[in-house]
Amino acid sequence: MTSFSDITGRLERLAIEVPSWAYGNSGTRFKVFGSPGTPRTVQEKVADAAKVHELTGLAPTVALHIPWDLVDDFKELATYAGDLGVGLGTINSNTFQDDDYKLGSLTNADSAIRAKAVQHNLDCIEVMGQTGSRDLKIWLADGTNYPGQADMRARQDWLAEGLSTIYDQLGEDQRLVLEYKFFEPAFYHTDVPDWGTSLVQCLALGERAVVCLDTGHHAPGTNIEFIVMQLLRLGKLGSFDFNSRFYADDDLIVGAADPFQLFRIITEVVRGGGLDDDSDVALMLDQCHNVEDKIPGQIRSVLNVQEMVARALLLDTAALDAARTEGDVLAANQVFMDAFYTDVRADLAGWREERGLPGDPMAAYRASGHQARLAEERVGGHQAGWN
Amino acid sequence: MTSFSDITGRLERLAIEVPSWAYGNSGTRFKVFGSPGTPRTVQEKVADAAKVHELTGLAPTVALHIPWDLVDDFKELATYAGDLGVGLGTINSNTFQDDDYKLGSLTNADSAIRAKAVQHNLDCIEVMGQTGSRDLKIWLADGTNYPGQADMRARQDWLAEGLSTIYDQLGEDQRLVLEYKFFEPAFYHTDVPDWGTSLVQCLALGERAVVCLDTGHHAPGTNIEFIVMQLLRLGKLGSFDFNSRFYADDDLIVGAADPFQLFRIITEVVRGGGLDDDSDVALMLDQCHNVEDKIPGQIRSVLNVQEMVARALLLDTAALDAARTEGDVLAANQVFMDAFYTDVRADLAGWREERGLPGDPMAAYRASGHQARLAEERVGGHQAGWN
Amino acid sequence: MTSFSDITGRLERLAIEVPSWAYGNSGTRFKVFGSPGTPRTVQEKVADAAKVHELTGLAPTVALHIPWDLVDDFKELATYAGDLGVGLGTINSNTFQDDDYKLGSLTNADSAIRAKAVQHNLDCIEVMGQTGSRDLKIWLADGTNYPGQADMRARQDWLAEGLSTIYDQLGEDQRLVLEYKFFEPAFYHTDVPDWGTSLVQCLALGERAVVCLDTGHHAPGTNIEFIVMQLLRLGKLGSFDFNSRFYADDDLIVGAADPFQLFRIITEVVRGGGLDDDSDVALMLDQCHNVEDKIPGQIRSVLNVQEMVARALLLDTAALDAARTEGDVLAANQVFMDAFYTDVRADLAGWREERGLPGDPMAAYRASGHQARLAEERVGGHQAGWN
Amino acid sequence: MTSFSDITGRLERLAIEVPSWAYGNSGTRFKVFGSPGTPRTVQEKVADAAKVHELTGLAPTVALHIPWDLVDDFKELATYAGDLGVGLGTINSNTFQDDDYKLGSLTNADSAIRAKAVQHNLDCIEVMGQTGSRDLKIWLADGTNYPGQADMRARQDWLAEGLSTIYDQLGEDQRLVLEYKFFEPAFYHTDVPDWGTSLVQCLALGERAVVCLDTGHHAPGTNIEFIVMQLLRLGKLGSFDFNSRFYADDDLIVGAADPFQLFRIITEVVRGGGLDDDSDVALMLDQCHNVEDKIPGQIRSVLNVQEMVARALLLDTAALDAARTEGDVLAANQVFMDAFYTDVRADLAGWREERGLPGDPMAAYRASGHQARLAEERVGGHQAGWN
Repeated sequence: MTSFSDITGRLERLAIEVPSWAYGNSGTRFKVFGSPGTPRTVQEKVADAAKVHELTGLAPTVALHIPWDLVDDFKELATYAGDLGVGLGTINSNTFQDDDYKLGSLTNADSAIRAKAVQHNLDCIEVMGQTGSRDLKIWLADGTNYPGQADMRARQDWLAEGLSTIYDQLGEDQRLVLEYKFFEPAFYHTDVPDWGTSLVQCLALGERAVVCLDTGHHAPGTNIEFIVMQLLRLGKLGSFDFNSRFYADDDLIVGAADPFQLFRIITEVVRGGGLDDDSDVALMLDQCHNVEDKIPGQIRSVLNVQEMVARALLLDTAALDAARTEGDVLAANQVFMDAFYTDVRADLAGWREERGLPGDPMAAYRASGHQARLAEERVGGHQAGWN
Repeated sequence: MTSFSDITGRLERLAIEVPSWAYGNSGTRFKVFGSPGTPRTVQEKVADAAKVHELTGLAPTVALHIPWDLVDDFKELATYAGDLGVGLGTINSNTFQDDDYKLGSLTNADSAIRAKAVQHNLDCIEVMGQTGSRDLKIWLADGTNYPGQADMRARQDWLAEGLSTIYDQLGEDQRLVLEYKFFEPAFYHTDVPDWGTSLVQCLALGERAVVCLDTGHHAPGTNIEFIVMQLLRLGKLGSFDFNSRFYADDDLIVGAADPFQLFRIITEVVRGGGLDDDSDVALMLDQCHNVEDKIPGQIRSVLNVQEMVARALLLDTAALDAARTEGDVLAANQVFMDAFYTDVRADLAGWREERGLPGDPMAAYRASGHQARLAEERVGGHQAGWN
Repeated sequence: MTSFSDITGRLERLAIEVPSWAYGNSGTRFKVFGSPGTPRTVQEKVADAAKVHELTGLAPTVALHIPWDLVDDFKELATYAGDLGVGLGTINSNTFQDDDYKLGSLTNADSAIRAKAVQHNLDCIEVMGQTGSRDLKIWLADGTNYPGQADMRARQDWLAEGLSTIYDQLGEDQRLVLEYKFFEPAFYHTDVPDWGTSLVQCLALGERAVVCLDTGHHAPGTNIEFIVMQLLRLGKLGSFDFNSRFYADDDLIVGAADPFQLFRIITEVVRGGGLDDDSDVALMLDQCHNVEDKIPGQIRSVLNVQEMVARALLLDTAALDAARTEGDVLAANQVFMDAFYTDVRADLAGWREERGLPGDPMAAYRASGHQARLAEERVGGHQAGWN
Repeated sequence: MTSFSDITGRLERLAIEVPSWAYGNSGTRFKVFGSPGTPRTVQEKVADAAKVHELTGLAPTVALHIPWDLVDDFKELATYAGDLGVGLGTINSNTFQDDDYKLGSLTNADSAIRAKAVQHNLDCIEVMGQTGSRDLKIWLADGTNYPGQADMRARQDWLAEGLSTIYDQLGEDQRLVLEYKFFEPAFYHTDVPDWGTSLVQCLALGERAVVCLDTGHHAPGTNIEFIVMQLLRLGKLGSFDFNSRFYADDDLIVGAADPFQLFRIITEVVRGGGLDDDSDVALMLDQCHNVEDKIPGQIRSVLNVQEMVARALLLDTAALDAARTEGDVLAANQVFMDAFYTDVRADLAGWREERGLPGDPMAAYRASGHQARLAEERVGGHQAGWN
């Protein structure tokens, strides 16, 4: 039996990257609701991210989205972030909001548009040089809405070509992380719909091309932890985009929709070495806070991941192996569920306090009056959002 | 065997209502692409709808959305539409884009917001008086994103209360049509998620409360034609919102994603009397044209419905009944598929030409130069969209 | 805040009906695996059910399936069961395994087959007279595999007719419980696919016709707790068939696939009065144990329900209401999750021991050697299964 | 524009392999219905397959399933088949119906069981030597029902090991074809759930290991034609198992559930060279006929494939390319739909008659009295089925 004291070492090293865009407004195609205190600038987003780290100790880096987070001087931004106690992380390119990309970016039938999309990614690599980021994350909105609309095969080849040009410009310590998504915004086909496609594109590129698994980007019923296991087995899991969903890519708080699924996923991450010291797997959030407050929404999210990591680390693997070897289905399942049902909240609160963090970061944030202060201070300007 | 000449009488009476909002810009949460020639005003939307009717003879009325289509003088708008050859149809209320409705409208825990949502619907009934519309269509974005967020049971009762107040204000020839939707924009629960909920709310209201079936608002795998059958059997099918989907509420052109499903649905409409002379079932489109042109997108859509109605009317019901009575599964299926696989396009083209309509409305529109003219004329102003 | 001692009264009254068929062999269309010690007779099934009750105190009744559990003298069987400490419960009719029912039973196009299916249900009512059962549960395998195969509308009317004849024969204290199922064994349409259809059929019958909700019989993504809420609100929830699923009707141990979903369901049961003293809602299991042992599989299942009922009863409803009234989404969700994450296992073990039950029924069963004894004793004969 | 006469050459070469097991009884876990005239022996199954080929000219080979189709002398069986005008095709191994395989075969935690499963496949390679078969098709029922039940990662490695031993025994002209399946009979995880897993296992084996795509083995909403495109692009599409589905792995007649999907799939097969002279892609059926007659069910199936191939070959690719290049979404979709809506049935009937085949094979079979003759002749013995 593993006890809480056995796992604190590994908990210590847990780091979750938060996305700058989680602090801006977001919503659905029907309505984006604004809220008082929403950041107007990249700096304000970074400050919000720093607040999450300050209260939890879990979120030392912020991912940026280009061009949403474009600034003249990224070194200055890095310094600003550093002063607040956080670093700049993954650079996300955006080739889905320019009018040219209506029918695709890296897969557009028009070679000039493909070239433009490639160039945008090369620009992002420039940014990475300044921010010191390791990862260029590419998510494509490319796809089609109607059967027959485009030549899926040709697009796959164009994609390979474009990615190859981008990959060639990466530094030796940099990686290209290719995200896949089942559907949306395209409704008939997407050009990187599944882990298989992301993998074969990455294999064609080389060692530093790896897959990003967004937990909300799968078909209904998909066993996501299996994919986690397989990508770790193949050494090709680059990063996670954590969030949760009931239906489509709902981008809800991680662990909110199906906490047991999150447990199973984290369990496979542990099993596959994804939390080991030498692991290259980046743990990131990619969520929206449409109706809830954003900073506490992010606090809740990193806490959810931490709690589930604790439960996964408490799994009695010796007992599990014994039951599996005996073929005792019920015993194996019980060992597994025992870890999940263990209430780690009090232990984690104590552990936080030992480290000078608030035992209950949600309550601490609420009590701090920070949100009201932001609402007062951040008046005027244009609230950040998805465009 | 039924031949094409046997069905022209029923085809003659086919009428499909088009939505004003289909002519404005739409998109996904990621991006709304604009396009040259998009209407800036309600009048321009009505003109576009009239063009669809002019070329197809299939779309004699336009549905309006309040407040998107709010004008000072609806009688004037009706006259304007009439001069263009079309009428004003269903009035759709909108209680999802005001900041107050972030956590619900008719189901909000705040009684003042519920009252406001009721009042908006009463205002819509006022509009109906001026436009001469029969139907008030209510689709609610109400729902929650997180388990525990709200009291689903209380909300159901509040919904009943609000609908009742609205229903009481309807004129004797007016109807309340309640739409249901599986998910989106809410991601954990929606307050009217399925036909069962819409039905029980309508039954509690009275005879003039009926269900609206949007073909894109169901769980994956749902047998929609069964629901059509059941609602017709119960006399409670008020209207259709036609569109098609592969994944969620994609709002693609009707018949584009699964033409055979559309055939099965129309077949049940015919079977249940939904196309009979005395039928009250309203056939409407509710679609988006995110990447394709809007006017020809609507032309394509009404033609798709017409073609499928023709195929359904050609079904050899005598042969089908015989096979069913014998329990000959393969024979019954073959009779059914034979109707679906019948190519009705040439017959329909000829029939159109007999009526002074273009045989190929899509080609006629393309050849007319209308789209280019609109692009030249409609410069400046604010293109209509979902907000 | 509610503490464990506050909820023991309600836990005391928790009773879960187990199905006789859970103790027989089951499997998939690919293979039914046998196992040593499987019952050969109804009596042996009842004895296995009694063992579950003996160790858990949770399962005082056994549901029977006719004709699988047909005996000459049901009064004798009731006495036998009583001597073992359990009672006979719901009677389930079976109109899906006779060759006549290949194309339907109560909905068959052949009136003679419909009459036969009605008669079988009347025979089941006879049995109920002898066993003292309150509920006749009807699940129909009726449906079709191919579009066009049958007249869905006519079948719905035949269904209404047949159910009416059956309903008329019920005693005043007896109920007809109509189960619905999304698909399987029929693959194109089922005649009672959803709660809406079950409800409208029940409404047409009368007050003593109520709906059975099997937790595995819904489309992917369906919010089941919403349906629970709605049926309780309408006074039409007759019973549960508990089990869990990842994909189709997997019939796994309840709570195994998505424990949080089970929590949400039970929470709505409590909210809607389904666990109140005067509640008529029957809680039953309907599961298969394809690869795991059957008696401990049932023990695990009733414990899972009990644990989740405890968590649901611990929900701090005052705090929840306050957060909901304030519209504090994150606070409401946290109150909800706090109940779910509460570890009730030790408290329940202590509570069991106070009542003379084993603290850990799974361990007690394993230690008892009962399974090995059954394997030795139950040699020869024909192991019970689904046919 | 392509006309029917342009495509007859390619139609000529169309060959569809039928499965021996389609002629035996099949069903669901609830019931397997028998039917008069069902084969009792492998020879009778082959004779039924030959009848399908005799009437359609489309089904020159029969796939065998070991041990279901085990005979003492396969050369004799091959001669028998040849005399009836058909050949023996793919050999399917079966490691899912022996009691040992309850918890897995090639992935079982017990090395002795893994060795047994490997040996069974080696035995199948022996059979291939006698039948002259090119392909060993491996579908595994391996998987688990409960989270935690087994070590998914270890199983993946055991799978790789076992497949490698099998692969090494293949002759130079033989292939290992690895099928994947989303779920069933396992309900939590399957060891080869998706094309990605099948692909990475095949890539590790070598060139003669290729993927089998069963059209019913995907998550809801999966864009199957995309996978077809990708596997053809990678040179790794070994074979198809054609069938259709509404929900799970329904194994309905190919083209029955979603004919437009079949069209899109075949269109990608043509686009990717899968119907070219030098193509290695095997087109097979894998279906059940639970409620319909088996021989005409297979006739219907091969006709459905043929009709859809004709429509796909009629696609005006020049017009399509032009529309795609212009980015004209509606025009491209219309060209695509025009091919789908073309009624090829009369042309195909004429073409069949030119070749001495019945114009309407379904009618010819019905008129022949063959089914009644079989029912008379095949009395006694044990009807073939899935076990």
